[in-house]
Formats: sequence, C-alpha cells, structure tokens
Amino acid sequence: MKQYSIGFDYGTNSVRALLVDCADGREVATSVFNYPSGEQGVILDPKDPNLARQHPGDYFAGATATIREVLAEAAKTESGFSVDQIVGIGVDTTGSSPLPLRADGLPLGMDPAYCENPHAQCWLWKDHTSYAEAAEITEKAQGYPYLSKIGGTYSSEWFWSKILRCARVAPDVFEAAHSWCELQDLIPAWLTGNINPRTMSRGVCAAGHKGMYSAQWGGLPSEEFLETLDPRLAALRGRLYDHAETADQPAGRLSAERAASLGLPESVVVSVGAMDAHLGAVGSSVKPGTLVKIMGTSTCDIMVGDSSTPDIPGVCGIVDGSVIPGMLGIEAGQSAVGDLFNWCASKLAPGSSHEELTREALKLKPGESGLLALDWNNGNRTILVDPRLTGLLVGQTLYTTAAEIYRTLIEATAYGALTIIRRIEEYGVKIDEIVCCGGIAEKSALAMQIYADVCNRPIKISRSAQTCALGSAIMASVAGGAHGSVLEAIHAMAGVKEIVYTPNPSAVSVYARLFALYGDLHDSFGKVNRQPDLHGLMKELLDIRDEALSA
Amino acid sequence: MKQYSIGFDYGTNSVRALLVDCADGREVATSVFNYPSGEQGVILDPKDPNLARQHPGDYFAGATATIREVLAEAAKTESGFSVDQIVGIGVDTTGSSPLPLRADGLPLGMDPAYCENPHAQCWLWKDHTSYAEAAEITEKAQGYPYLSKIGGTYSSEWFWSKILRCARVAPDVFEAAHSWCELQDLIPAWLTGNINPRTMSRGVCAAGHKGMYSAQWGGLPSEEFLETLDPRLAALRGRLYDHAETADQPAGRLSAERAASLGLPESVVVSVGAMDAHLGAVGSSVKPGTLVKIMGTSTCDIMVGDSSTPDIPGVCGIVDGSVIPGMLGIEAGQSAVGDLFNWCASKLAPGSSHEELTREALKLKPGESGLLALDWNNGNRTILVDPRLTGLLVGQTLYTTAAEIYRTLIEATAYGALTIIRRIEEYGVKIDEIVCCGGIAEKSALAMQIYADVCNRPIKISRSAQTCALGSAIMASVAGGAHGSVLEAIHAMAGVKEIVYTPNPSAVSVYARLFALYGDLHDSFGKVNRQPDLHGLMKELLDIRDEALSA
Repeated sequence: MKQYSIGFDYGTNSVRALLVDCADGREVATSVFNYPSGEQGVILDPKDPNLARQHPGDYFAGATATIREVLAEAAKTESGFSVDQIVGIGVDTTGSSPLPLRADGLPLGMDPAYCENPHAQCWLWKDHTSYAEAAEITEKAQGYPYLSKIGGTYSSEWFWSKILRCARVAPDVFEAAHSWCELQDLIPAWLTGNINPRTMSRGVCAAGHKGMYSAQWGGLPSEEFLETLDPRLAALRGRLYDHAETADQPAGRLSAERAASLGLPESVVVSVGAMDAHLGAVGSSVKPGTLVKIMGTSTCDIMVGDSSTPDIPGVCGIVDGSVIPGMLGIEAGQSAVGDLFNWCASKLAPGSSHEELTREALKLKPGESGLLALDWNNGNRTILVDPRLTGLLVGQTLYTTAAEIYRTLIEATAYGALTIIRRIEEYGVKIDEIVCCGGIAEKSALAMQIYADVCNRPIKISRSAQTCALGSAIMASVAGGAHGSVLEAIHAMAGVKEIVYTPNPSAVSVYARLFALYGDLHDSFGKVNRQPDLHGLMKELLDIRDEALSA
Repeated sequence: MKQYSIGFDYGTNSVRALLVDCADGREVATSVFNYPSGEQGVILDPKDPNLARQHPGDYFAGATATIREVLAEAAKTESGFSVDQIVGIGVDTTGSSPLPLRADGLPLGMDPAYCENPHAQCWLWKDHTSYAEAAEITEKAQGYPYLSKIGGTYSSEWFWSKILRCARVAPDVFEAAHSWCELQDLIPAWLTGNINPRTMSRGVCAAGHKGMYSAQWGGLPSEEFLETLDPRLAALRGRLYDHAETADQPAGRLSAERAASLGLPESVVVSVGAMDAHLGAVGSSVKPGTLVKIMGTSTCDIMVGDSSTPDIPGVCGIVDGSVIPGMLGIEAGQSAVGDLFNWCASKLAPGSSHEELTREALKLKPGESGLLALDWNNGNRTILVDPRLTGLLVGQTLYTTAAEIYRTLIEATAYGALTIIRRIEEYGVKIDEIVCCGGIAEKSALAMQIYADVCNRPIKISRSAQTCALGSAIMASVAGGAHGSVLEAIHAMAGVKEIVYTPNPSAVSVYARLFALYGDLHDSFGKVNRQPDLHGLMKELLDIRDEALSA
C-alpha cells in the first residue's frame, strides 16, 4: 500500500503544508497560508525596530487551512489516494520562537485578557529586544558548561534571553504565564492534544540549540544558575521540562478533536517538532561533510558530525540529535540574507524590483562597482554573535546605482558565508560539499554564482523547493513507520538538482581580494581583537574597480 | 545717470548672465543658458567615472544668448534703460577648468580636427583623471615653495595635473596645443578680442589657487621644476603668462566684433576673470571674519584675511588678491554637496524626489536613524585633499529608508563643513559669521538648520540668489568706474537676508556625539596619522538612536 506523510513548515510570514510520497519524496500537494496578523504576519513596534512578535492563533488557523487544502488536492490529483495512507505529520518552525502558555496549555496570546499584549505573543526568532539580557546570560554563564556547545555567546534571539526580558519589561505577562514552550513544540502539542506544559513533547533541536538543554548535564540549566539571572526563572524551571527528544520520535497520535477538524484518521502519528533549518538540511540530504545552507530571509548553515566534533567558537550550536539522531547537529547562520536584498529593493530603492535589480546586477563584473558592504543590517549571528551590529557600505561615488548596491549586498552575504566556512574548517570539520536550498537558492542564479565564486567551491541546489517541509515529512515518515531510520528515509526521499554552479577563476581572484578587505571591515567594526589599518581600503577598492573596468 | 553692470557666471551645467543696478545691486534681468553638449553640459566616459569635460563652443553660444536676453528684458522692464548705461561686464567660471588653445587663441576643442577629442576640450573642475599626476607633482614640489600657500598637496582637479595628464595620455593633443588657459580667462579674452595666449589677461584667482602662480616667486613655477615633471611642461611655460591680475582690473573693452554681435557699445569694460566661488563670496559681502559658503553641487568656502594669515595645511589655497584686492583670499571646499543629495534622489532611490525625501527627512530627529556617513563620494578636497576617497554609510538596519539616508548625507556634508571650520580656527583665523549662498542655501531649509545645529553657529543666507553672477557684476562695476573700490561696491551692492538659522541646543548635543564618530571614520579611512578604535561605533550609533526614539 502507498504511504504518504505531511510536513508542516512554519516560516516567518506563512505556514506551508506539504504532502509527499514516502517511497521517493515526490511532492503530491502543497498549500500555503499567510499569517493574517501584523505586517506580513509579524507584529512590529514603530518605536522599537528590535521587536518582532507573532499571534499564536495564526498558527492554528494555518494548520487547519493548509491540511484541508492538501488533502483536497491529493484527492483530486493522486489516483487511489485515501487519508488512511497518511502515516504521519511532521512539524518544523522558526526558532528560537518561545511563547508563554497558560496552565491549561493555551497560548497566553490567545487569552482574551492578553491577546492585544505584544509581550504575551510568540517572541519571533528575529526579535532582538533582549540584547542586554543575552549579554547578562553570557556573562553569568561563565564557569558553567552551558555555552560550551552553543558558540560561547548566548544570543538575544534565544529562549532564556526572551523569557528574562519578558519577566523584566512585562512582569504581569510573565506572572500570568504558567510555562513557556518553543513554537516547534506548540504545534505537535496542539495536534496530539497533549498540551500539558510538563508532559507535552519537547524537541531537542530548539532545546539544545537555544535553551541550553543537554542530557549531559541533566536537562535545562540548573536552578542555581537561573537564580543568578532572576529568582523567577529558577521557579519557572520546574514548570518547563526535563527531557527533550529527536524529531524522528512520535509525539503521539492525532487527538480525536484534531482528527475530526482536519479530516484525518486518529491513527496518524505526529512526530516531535524541530526547527526549520535543521529539517531543511534533512530535506537537502545532509550527511557528514555536507554543508547545507537554508537561504531565505536569513540563512541557516547546518552540518552533521560525529562525536569527535570540537567546540567551535562563535558557531551557534553543536547539539546531539538536533538534525539526525545519533549525530551531532552543527548550526551556524546569518541574520539577514534575503531580508537584505528585500531591504534594498523595498526601502533603499523603493521604486525597483528584484527582477530589474538582478538584470542590472548581472551586467556587472566582480569588483566593477568599487563597492564593499558588511551584511550586518540585522546584526551578526555567526561568528560574532552580536545583534548590536549594523550595515556598512563603502566605496560609493556619485555614479553608484541601486543595482550596484544590490549586487554588493549579495556579495556581502557571500563573504559572510565564507567567514563561517573558514571558521568551521579552522576547527577541523571538513566541508566536502555545499548544498543550498530555500527561496534564494531557488530563485537567484546571480546569488548562487556569486556564492560559488566567493567561496571558490561548487554550489549544488537541493532538489526540492520545499526542503524544510520535506524534512518534516521525512521525520513523519520515520515516526509513522514508513522508514526504519532517518538516513534511510533521506536516501529514499531527498536529493540535489542536476545544475551545479561552478566557480569562475577570474571572478574567484577578484573576490579573494575583496574578501580580504571585507575581513578588515569585519574585524574593525566587529568584536574581534584586531584593529586593521583601513587607510588604504578605499583606494584598493578603486584599484580593483579600475582594473575590472579596463579588463 | 544710472549705471548698470553685467555679471557672467559659468557653472557646471549652464551659464547665467545677470544685469544689475550698480547703485544698490538690484537685479534687473537674468538669463540662463544650458550647455547643449554631453550630459547636462558635461562630456562623460562610461569607462572612466573620473572623466568630466566640456565643449568650449558651448561657452560662447551661452554668452551671446544670455546677454541678448538680459538686454531685451531690461529694455522691456527698466524705464529709461539704455545699453550706454552699461559700464562693464564681469566674468566668473568654474575652476580649475583648463583648456588647450591654438596659437591664434582658438580653443583646440573647436578646431574641426579636434572637436570630437575629449582631451582637447575643457578639463572641467571635477575631472579627477589626473590623480596620479597630482601625487607626482606633490612629491616633486617638496623643497620648492609652490605648495606652501595651497594646502601642501597638489590636487588632481588643478591646472598642472590636468596638463601633465594630457601630455601623457594624449600627446597629439598636447602637441597641437600652443598654450593653455583657464576658462575664467577664456571668456574675457573672447569678449575683448585679445586672444593671444601670451598677452590675454590672466586672473590671479585661478593662477594663484590652481596654477602655483605667485608674484612672490616671479610668476608660474620655474622651468627647472617643470622639467622634473616633463620637459614638455618646461617648454610650455614660455607660452603661458608672466603676470596675473585681480578681478577688479579691466581686461580691456569689448571688441568691435563682439560689441556688434552682443548689441552693446564698444565702451563697455570687461573685467579680469575669476573663479565662481571667489566672486560668490564678493556677492555675499565677504569681509574679514566672515566665512562664505557657496553651496551648490560642491561647496566652496571663502574667507579673506590680512597678511598675518598663516599657512593652513589641507586648505586649498591662500592667494593675495584672489577675492578682494589687497587681502589674502582663503579657499577651502567640499567636492560633493548638492551632488551627493542629487545622487541619493536620482541613483540610490531612483523613484524619489528632493521634495519627497526632504519632507520625510524633516520628520526625523537628529540621531534617530542610527546612520552616519562620510561625504566623500567625490573624494575629499579639504582637509585631506584626496580624490581617491569614496563614500561610506554605516548604521543601516533592515528598516533604514532612503529619506533617512538623504538626511544622513546632508548631515555628513555638515560634518565635513565643521571639519574645515575647525581646521581654519585651529590656525588662528577667527570665524565670526557664516553666510551661505547658492542653490542649497536658497532651497534647503532642512540643510541650513542641520548646518546650524552641527556647527553650533547661526547661519545667515546671502540676499542674492545669484551671488556669483552678482560678484562678477560687482567687479565689473569697479572696473567700469561705477565704484572706487571692491569694498565700496560690496557695501553698496551686496547683503544678507533677514532669516537666520539658529542652533537648537538639543540637536547640538546629539550632533556633537555624531561628529565625534564622524571624526573616527574620517581618520580611519582618510590619510590622517591616527587609527581610532571602531569596535564600539555601531553600538554608539544604536545607543544614540535608541535615546532619540525614546526621547
């Protein structure tokens, strides 16, 4: 009998459901639901550009709408399809996106008393309001093991920073919340009906990468440590969880209520939730030696390694089982990639379009614009781990165009990517292959060629355009019994496209010079203990420009 | 009997003629002619953004058209007007804008054999192709007195750099040229008919500021020195000039041919030419202690001082009689001001307008954008004297708008202005008053308020909207005998408006913090022997932003 699984992918602006064939990963039906709240699904504060929240009600509305739509589509297009053939539902979401819960498991942001309060909503991954709390956690965690596996610096994007911030700026919300969970865990809880904060299943992915959880030190950080931050956090610890699981494990089966509302049998297994990038890597057939880059508004870099993998300073996290059970999942990333290009097209040069800017940018030779940028408009996630960094553009003349800046911003993100690759390899983790996926990888041949030229490595593209949702479906196929292991399921269900972007030698040499200058800017304005001499930088850019123009 | 004079102002894109009443400077008639050649009058090279040339034929066509028009207008609107009441014509032009001449005085660019050759045209002030030659001249002039009064660094914008460059890149053009002159001297020569390169009148303004001329060392730099640059320059020296004059002196009277073609009597005196900024200062009633800022596409800063004025490193020039006879004329400047705002409105944010950007920028509080820029998109004229510097923008987030950048660029030019003021005062020249004139001063209340706040000084605005042309007319009134001296003519004919922009204390304190950061960027990327620590700069900008937003 044919077997199918469904993967949910909760992104920044919308949720997608993908129904696939467990035999080969073939995509049978898909549906997208745009979150109705806020600005493109994100609740903002004009007074505070760091704030980004989401209304949890949007998540449930999206799940129901998209599942119904994929089922209807499959019934129409897939011969012999029956909902009884669906073995599982998997879930990935953005993260760290924690939200407060009532004692009965209802998200506090859906409580009528709190539904208008931004602090009671889901604190979206890109919310940077908690930078002071993050710095405090980093400082107080010295002497504890908690940061050793997550890059040595705790981020303002992460679980405890956000909860601590909430306790400080909105004590009423903090008091009203019985517990907290990551978005990745909210959806399986809601699907299975096990919404008790103490017993709902928790995924090791966000727990380990964002929550300082490790089985090694007995779960979440100790009460003693949390006490140093705030006695209220220490008290909260007992209302969170003791144990977290890998995403191939079943969180349970659909509750009767949910099965009825979604039009599915109660036999469907729901797998444990994980973060989008990690399951995107699964959907891109990650394996040891493969760097998967999930490139959307931001970029996540995912690898898997064996137990010999060392700690890598500035790399967001190394967590056992966060990608593939039995392997260490390595996560790094860049805070703004597609967001940076969107900024250029929408804010910097408001009248323009990506198509138009790309068309003009394609005409430029490497170095020809004389421009160089830092890709820090949304801070730096790896390797500086500092949200209080900003963008920088240098080299502009009176002739500089928006399209030149657009290309320069793409190049800047590629230099950022190479900086991460260098750091990972410096610590002995070999990268044999780069596979890109996500919107940028799918849509921008310009960006992919620039990445190949800047990194001087071939760039492959994941076969699926929906790798995160596919990764969720792969996990669901394992949890639901269609495959015996994640590696077996990946082998059957994921792969790469035929097209490979290969480095162009003349571009490689120009970009090597520009990358050295990027390194000087990076170290001058970042927190690295080095103070390069910048007096010649503008002239070197002009020399590179003049050589490109006369070539 | 009433007396009138006419001032010509040859700008970057057009020439203006202004007919004024010598009694009080009242503006009777004005006419503008846009140069027809190139892009808005400037011949460009898509392969070389440093190149900017002009076709000399445009200048003569413009003189005829505009004079005829002002005469026609005066005849219509001024009761009792007669061309016999015109005592003189004065001339100011951009500079240093040298051009090659045939032995008969015809500009080589008008010779049919050379009219298509960009190197035979006028090398416009903002042509930066000669940066290597400028560096060579600076180096070889060590041990000579020639740079002592012009800031210590020879510029790529200046006379000898451009001629040397021409000799090297276009030896055929150099050979075909019998001599060279500044544009300021071409127009009086053409009007008076004295076009013999050896005897035509030469103004001390461009000669002293741009040509290393000084009566003190016997005129132009020595053959011996020029020989070190190129033997061909040494040979050229004898075909240039020995003596240069102040702009209140008569260059001659209109030639019969020119009088007939313009519709004027041959009695009209033509005064010696000078550069636009210097006569703009005259038209803005410059006096000791007054800094006049002529703010257009670029900005020129002009002061006058007595003989005790010391050499000021990095200030473009201190030349006896270049503004007012008997006083030292002090010139500084910024290579791009209005050009920078135009770049933002036309290239960076193509769909936008100055009005729209200004409207949005006016809503912003100082520091609120979190942005900081260097104003070097066209290099730095004072105090770094380096055309091989470029723009820089730092502090951008994913929310940064074009209007925020627009305001930041205005602020950057104000920091550049303050840097010049500080340098001048550091050398003991006191600035009691700032008077702005030119397009930016006339049109942008936003810019003027920002300048007042950044400089923490009141900003006055020149009464005339055409101060350069008025300054030319003032010089013509003296050469033509309507006034006994330039100071007497200024007193009668020039003044300031009632409106004064006064500093706002809360803005002053924010800008003081931003200016300190500007200084760090300036010194890091400029050639100053200082290497500031930039690691905290982005965070300081964010702190300033957050304080502005919460205020």
